[in-house]
Amino acid sequence: MLRLSRFLPSTSRRVSDLKEVLWSGSLTFEHALSTSAANYDENASARKFASYTVFKGKAALSISPILPVFSKLESGASRVNRNGSVMLTFFPAVGQRKYDYAKKQLFALSPTEVGSLISLGPAESCEFFHDPSMKSSNEGQVKKTLSITPLGSDNGYFLNISVMNNGQKTNERMSVPITKAEFAVMRTALSFALPHIMGWDQALTSHPQSPSSAPASRPRVERPNPDSEWDR
Amino acid sequence: MLRLSRFLPSTSRRVSDLKEVLWSGSLTFEHALSTSAANYDENASARKFASYTVFKGKAALSISPILPVFSKLESGASRVNRNGSVMLTFFPAVGQRKYDYAKKQLFALSPTEVGSLISLGPAESCEFFHDPSMKSSNEGQVKKTLSITPLGSDNGYFLNISVMNNGQKTNERMSVPITKAEFAVMRTALSFALPHIMGWDQALTSHPQSPSSAPASRPRVERPNPDSEWDR
Amino acid sequence: MLRLSRFLPSTSRRVSDLKEVLWSGSLTFEHALSTSAANYDENASARKFASYTVFKGKAALSISPILPVFSKLESGASRVNRNGSVMLTFFPAVGQRKYDYAKKQLFALSPTEVGSLISLGPAESCEFFHDPSMKSSNEGQVKKTLSITPLGSDNGYFLNISVMNNGQKTNERMSVPITKAEFAVMRTALSFALPHIMGWDQALTSHPQSPSSAPASRPRVERPNPDSEWDR
Amino acid sequence: MLRLSRFLPSTSRRVSDLKEVLWSGSLTFEHALSTSAANYDENASARKFASYTVFKGKAALSISPILPVFSKLESGASRVNRNGSVMLTFFPAVGQRKYDYAKKQLFALSPTEVGSLISLGPAESCEFFHDPSMKSSNEGQVKKTLSITPLGSDNGYFLNISVMNNGQKTNERMSVPITKAEFAVMRTALSFALPHIMGWDQALTSHPQSPSSAPASRPRVERPNPDSEWDR
Repeated sequence: MLRLSRFLPSTSRRVSDLKEVLWSGSLTFEHALSTSAANYDENASARKFASYTVFKGKAALSISPILPVFSKLESGASRVNRNGSVMLTFFPAVGQRKYDYAKKQLFALSPTEVGSLISLGPAESCEFFHDPSMKSSNEGQVKKTLSITPLGSDNGYFLNISVMNNGQKTNERMSVPITKAEFAVMRTALSFALPHIMGWDQALTSHPQSPSSAPASRPRVERPNPDSEWDR
Repeated sequence: MLRLSRFLPSTSRRVSDLKEVLWSGSLTFEHALSTSAANYDENASARKFASYTVFKGKAALSISPILPVFSKLESGASRVNRNGSVMLTFFPAVGQRKYDYAKKQLFALSPTEVGSLISLGPAESCEFFHDPSMKSSNEGQVKKTLSITPLGSDNGYFLNISVMNNGQKTNERMSVPITKAEFAVMRTALSFALPHIMGWDQALTSHPQSPSSAPASRPRVERPNPDSEWDR
Repeated sequence: MLRLSRFLPSTSRRVSDLKEVLWSGSLTFEHALSTSAANYDENASARKFASYTVFKGKAALSISPILPVFSKLESGASRVNRNGSVMLTFFPAVGQRKYDYAKKQLFALSPTEVGSLISLGPAESCEFFHDPSMKSSNEGQVKKTLSITPLGSDNGYFLNISVMNNGQKTNERMSVPITKAEFAVMRTALSFALPHIMGWDQALTSHPQSPSSAPASRPRVERPNPDSEWDR
Repeated sequence: MLRLSRFLPSTSRRVSDLKEVLWSGSLTFEHALSTSAANYDENASARKFASYTVFKGKAALSISPILPVFSKLESGASRVNRNGSVMLTFFPAVGQRKYDYAKKQLFALSPTEVGSLISLGPAESCEFFHDPSMKSSNEGQVKKTLSITPLGSDNGYFLNISVMNNGQKTNERMSVPITKAEFAVMRTALSFALPHIMGWDQALTSHPQSPSSAPASRPRVERPNPDSEWDR
């Protein structure tokens, strides 16, 4: 029996963490949050970074993929512990062709938000809300909004980020126009990234060193196929 | 000459096994069934699991890919013995945001069923029937049905599972509404998974350690190209 | 200066060989043909085979991908010597659910033919012609035709093969109806296979052991980037 | 604070270099150009080349992908230093089925230009301009133009290259008609190549030897997740 102790909007990035935790069926949400980010860091020296960046008049937008994190199970196998994401980084122009990266604003797209973006029709819009303090005493103090709205006849879009801080009485906004060609790059790159940020590429990778390719001369044990839908 | 001893509906998962066996041209269907699931287990310690899960009011749905199984041929090469699948797992809500995973119902999509799902138009429906006791004396006692029906203006779908057990006089039903964005994730993940559950990614992987990259100074033996359509 | 000694229709599989040879700029067409198939065999023990097979009333159709063949250059790099293909194998039903694989007919789709198939609209048709004796004294004796015609309202297709042998006065024909779902599998698998049969996946694989990741402390030699479009 | 010292049109290949350099936040544009091409060469002996070539009456067109170049960061990780591209090579027919590769003209498509090409509607056109002497005293002397225009009812396109040299008073033009099937190959191959020339496939590859799969028994250090959008 699984229990979600409070409501989480489906657009929140942390819902993905929750879902993976729920899947394991034995951790509470709070425990999961306190450990999920800490244990399974990538080996920094092996990591590679890539992005797609567009520089426009008032701001720039950079998009880069982030890997999921797997955790080991007792069996020795491993399972996605935290989904990856696609990080959008907005940073403002502070003069002609000058950008201030220190004033960046981040927005991490969950798999479902990526699905929303890549299936957007030419005249459609979408909007996502994130709360960085969700589930803490500061919940609701800061509200991030990403909206994607059509540019018009060009089949491009505006990507708009708004970060409203009720405590500091600030509301930072940036908007980047994306041409149809640039959106095609984003759509293609995000469609490519989606199975990877969900860990499906790793789940679908066979391991040639495994005994799965053992020749037929080895002893055979009859037992049910664990993959079958008929085993209950 | 190959012979199929009884009718198998094309939507059945086990048809895939049969087809692969038929392909080898020398095994009977019964022999194949008695050995195919047992010999070539994956090395559990190397396996990775990933899924995509949506939690809705009355039930949750989790989707995860399952690898195909290869078997070795006498030549040392190997061939797909059993296709992989995409497993759908439904489990019911038993209270507000509480789910009972023990009451799960499974439905394994074959490659052709995946093809049906990813090519579904916005207003189209599809339906698949599985019989877990197919080819046994209990054939027809239990009937699983998965139907996918449009949600309406949203471009999303209802995924409905029904498991009717004539012996136990039970009929369990679960239904999960899938938004357009969630279906885009499913469509993208399933399109990615499809060549993998069929083993095409492995068939299309070159092996750099092979002598195929031997330099031209090695002796050359003229012989027909075994891949050619002209050899008969 | 490159010279093609005779006309080759663009749908012919062997044109691919020719094109790759022409690309190297120093071999004649005849020389290429006499060596291309022989030198660079795959290591049979490492190969994996996968297919997608549909069994219908009068015939079955199996589709499987075939890897390209690379050859080494003097520099130590390698280049596609012969494109891969997607092999279609038709074999007839010789009774109810009995198929005779010995009576199979093969048709190997070139990359452009794959492109034709995956871009086929719901009401469109296409047709390909192959001559197994092309460029020999028997040219024109045997003519293979593959035609793909719409099924009608279902959005599926008929795949029809005809092998006409003027010498033996025979004309073998097989036809397999493909549902919309099955064609979606074919389209997805062929779209996946296409970059692989052209060798683009290998050309786009980085080699982490290469000195490309050398740290900046190594001596730097200024020289033009060989990839640049500006070098002539 | 980043500063672009002069205007660069967004269609230029070198803009990609610039963007990656800007991303690192510490190099000037001029320094970047003098070192980016030199340090991180691929190991020539490991490289593989693949292309897609169509031979037509007046000219031939060959398309091949080019890998991005990564550079190491102080942390040991690496980042895309220069995006890859898709190189178009036109070479003229100089007689019936004779082509002169020495008279080739090159045009390297940036990721955004690839996005433009793969999202082109059946009746749409696009045009790209490159200047090989950009930012030198010869800027504007040579102007390369690639235009893609619809063929008409066939759903194919003309690919036209024009290289205008003001100093030499020359203007070389070549035009290659691309059928719908050939364009489908190009679209599929370029869609496949796009995430690779941007380095996203490498950024999304997990490294199994990393401690990310450390078992839960290892000591845990609580620290913020560096990937989170909430860290600023």
